[in-house]
Amino acid sequence: MINSIEILGLIAATLTTAAFLPQVYKTWKTKSADSLSMTMLLAFVSGVLCWLVYGFLIKSLPIILCNFITAISGFLLLYFKIRYKK
Amino acid sequence: MINSIEILGLIAATLTTAAFLPQVYKTWKTKSADSLSMTMLLAFVSGVLCWLVYGFLIKSLPIILCNFITAISGFLLLYFKIRYKK
Repeated sequence: MINSIEILGLIAATLTTAAFLPQVYKTWKTKSADSLSMTMLLAFVSGVLCWLVYGFLIKSLPIILCNFITAISGFLLLYFKIRYKK
Repeated sequence: MINSIEILGLIAATLTTAAFLPQVYKTWKTKSADSLSMTMLLAFVSGVLCWLVYGFLIKSLPIILCNFITAISGFLLLYFKIRYKK
């Protein structure tokens, strides 16, 4: 049974995972990534990849799923940051 | 005893928490938050606050700590986004 605490955790995970999708869309649409910090993107993508491996090691589907989606967003933002460099 | 899987989890948490500090610094330094998505910031801060409450409810110090720091970064970015609006 899923209790209300776990539901809150799922809402939290959904929000922090989905949050980066409008950022990816905005960056792609405006072709501008000036205000995005390259250091942030590198640390963030590295961290998310660590979370992904951690999820596989402890066999946690929620951790794998969230970080897989976030890793795609992170790599896209990193690509845009390099691509749209002025 | 902390095993190597838990160490990987700690590295992951440190990276994804620390990642937003250079973003806060860059946004503050350049006074520009144009490429940051407002939808991303709102969803992200809401998600981090849910994580924080979740951390308190399940009494997890690592979740509380990481999300407390990330919440501060998130609120600062949100403030800069509104403050530096052109």
